[in-house]
Amino acid sequence: MAPMTLPTFPDSLVQRDAGGRILLLVLDGVGGLPGSDHGQTELEAARTPNLDRLAAGSSLGMHHPVAPGVTPGSGPGHLSLFGYDPLVHQVGRGALSALGVGFELRAGDLALRLNLATIDAEGRVVDRRAGRPSDEEALQVVRRLREGVRLKNERIEFFLEHEKEHRVVLIFRGGRLGEKLRDTDPQEVGVPPLTPRAFRPDPDPASENTVRVLRDFLDEARKILKDEPVMNGLLARGFARYEGFPSFEDRFGLRGAVHARYPMYRGVARLVGMEVTGTPSTDEEAVGLVERHFSEYDFHFLHYKAPDARGEDGDFAGKVEALEAADAWIPRLRDLEPDVLVVTGDHSTPATMGIHSWHAVPLLIHSRWARPTAEAFGEGACRTGDLGTIEGRHIMSLALAHAGRLKKFGA
Amino acid sequence: MAPMTLPTFPDSLVQRDAGGRILLLVLDGVGGLPGSDHGQTELEAARTPNLDRLAAGSSLGMHHPVAPGVTPGSGPGHLSLFGYDPLVHQVGRGALSALGVGFELRAGDLALRLNLATIDAEGRVVDRRAGRPSDEEALQVVRRLREGVRLKNERIEFFLEHEKEHRVVLIFRGGRLGEKLRDTDPQEVGVPPLTPRAFRPDPDPASENTVRVLRDFLDEARKILKDEPVMNGLLARGFARYEGFPSFEDRFGLRGAVHARYPMYRGVARLVGMEVTGTPSTDEEAVGLVERHFSEYDFHFLHYKAPDARGEDGDFAGKVEALEAADAWIPRLRDLEPDVLVVTGDHSTPATMGIHSWHAVPLLIHSRWARPTAEAFGEGACRTGDLGTIEGRHIMSLALAHAGRLKKFGA
Repeated sequence: MAPMTLPTFPDSLVQRDAGGRILLLVLDGVGGLPGSDHGQTELEAARTPNLDRLAAGSSLGMHHPVAPGVTPGSGPGHLSLFGYDPLVHQVGRGALSALGVGFELRAGDLALRLNLATIDAEGRVVDRRAGRPSDEEALQVVRRLREGVRLKNERIEFFLEHEKEHRVVLIFRGGRLGEKLRDTDPQEVGVPPLTPRAFRPDPDPASENTVRVLRDFLDEARKILKDEPVMNGLLARGFARYEGFPSFEDRFGLRGAVHARYPMYRGVARLVGMEVTGTPSTDEEAVGLVERHFSEYDFHFLHYKAPDARGEDGDFAGKVEALEAADAWIPRLRDLEPDVLVVTGDHSTPATMGIHSWHAVPLLIHSRWARPTAEAFGEGACRTGDLGTIEGRHIMSLALAHAGRLKKFGA
Repeated sequence: MAPMTLPTFPDSLVQRDAGGRILLLVLDGVGGLPGSDHGQTELEAARTPNLDRLAAGSSLGMHHPVAPGVTPGSGPGHLSLFGYDPLVHQVGRGALSALGVGFELRAGDLALRLNLATIDAEGRVVDRRAGRPSDEEALQVVRRLREGVRLKNERIEFFLEHEKEHRVVLIFRGGRLGEKLRDTDPQEVGVPPLTPRAFRPDPDPASENTVRVLRDFLDEARKILKDEPVMNGLLARGFARYEGFPSFEDRFGLRGAVHARYPMYRGVARLVGMEVTGTPSTDEEAVGLVERHFSEYDFHFLHYKAPDARGEDGDFAGKVEALEAADAWIPRLRDLEPDVLVVTGDHSTPATMGIHSWHAVPLLIHSRWARPTAEAFGEGACRTGDLGTIEGRHIMSLALAHAGRLKKFGA
């Protein structure tokens, strides 16, 4: 059953011709749990004088990115922050991988993940990851396939992109393509790959079409790779038809820009139509991109990965340091004079857990129309803030409201 | 697209044969923002000893009347307080105007707004407001139209009501009437009024029917007004088919009464089937009506406009005084011994903004089953109250529960 949901708000309320500028700073995985020896979370333990001063002029709250108890992946976590209900707008693995490597997906494309694998003379899987090849080695094989494979169905184009090590993304484009296929990856060694097949019972014609195209692709690939000593097989999974999204600009009247070091976050922002300002190789460069392009866009999304990475490492002190580093950018961001500055995360990553979690995420909305309640930014201050504990998909309407970009609802 | 929504609660839980009496006091626009020099909102700055004492025996909270970030008009704000999801139960401008002047709309009626306008000899609009006539002058013209117009389609009745100055409401009743028409008001002078026409593509038959009826009405009106020196034309907009609402009594088993000085609030209460106890010309008279009729109804809605009016004036001190005036009524309302006394607003109107806003609204529910948390009524006390921050449409189920009017859900 399709999930029922309230719309965030009627898009007809959006004031398209005017309004303030919005800056969203995502501290990835910012939410935490108390460290064992002091009872403070990572954010509470961090010395963040600039964030604390910002909080003193902000409305505070907490948010559930998807729903209470649900641990978000990075895709749904960010879609929620962008005002898209992540239970409605689902993006499959293959499509996220394609976006992650910077591929320009179009509505109707069918994306899937391929593993380079080793197959023995009897056709059985020997290594599901082909000995974890280097990117260099894997890319050689990807190029041979790109050049060699000719599909029988001439209406179908294919695109092959290397992701990392043994991981490859395959995109089919053209005709009716469905995603209801079982994986060919048997998830074990000593057995042959599974044959491409649509889910039963009642396979849909579009997925049956994809089965034919994929079988043809795999047959061609087998011939091309038969002389490869290690990377001589392919395992397919994560079939995802990309449906296309109503764009950020269409929905909110905002020209949006993403400033992010990692492709995944540029990908999810591009999904809703934000423009990529560059491919910074340091966080410092990402902040510089915001400064350089600030006047060109109505909405800026600045992504900062380190708190999540340190949280996943289980490194409490490292996550504290990562948050303190972000604090130093706040004066520079305030100097840009955004009408609304939102600071939050796409999910929690408590260092004590070492993994994404479902815990509510601290939220700060700074604007001249704020209702301040505390002079600190942390779970304790946020949970008694004026915004209450909300669903993440409502942050966008709050940001728009504070920017003077929403009309009154009804007379 | 119709918004999907979770129900407030299953109406089947309503206990129809018994339960306590509920009194809802709406302090219109009560929510505010901190004044610049002291950091307190209007409600926090006001001396409200009676409300504070009431709070000490109440559950406190905050509510979003429509959704986070959405600024409610008075109609949606009140519908939410009455337990109706305002995103589902939308009422168009024409229908709200009709209700505002006290017209008894029926399901299927088509209401629209007319401007009295001045048209020159070439048929071009010279003044879209006909020189802003006095109510007296406009009413003369309205009477001529009421008496003179004869519609060709005899199944259609029409009703013409004067609103204020050049503003008139026209209601058609009978047959199938649709609202998907473009306005005939060209929104500029020097051009003729637009011809009534259904939206394209795919106009629906009911709206095409309305086009015919409206053309006929305007043709007749033109003949009658041709000798008028100034108010010789009509411009139509705000087409709204009134769908009818499930009544308050059917849904909640409550006989409800409205006590309000201003027609708009009597109108929105009548929309859900409350009875009007009178047309008080002062707030004192409105409170008197509650006292006089208290034993006759299960639910009383007392509306107080002044905090919103002073907020819209940008008059912080005036709004503070307006709230202090309401405080004086609390002992009289408590003397009536309602089982549940709810005090809240339909939206915030911060004096610093001078306009309705999206900020959450303080909420107090007084009953013997309350969980008190503070001895003050204000944003600060309410945001840490027992009720949390909720959607406005859930207030009604809380009031019913506290009145012993909801059965247990499930065995």
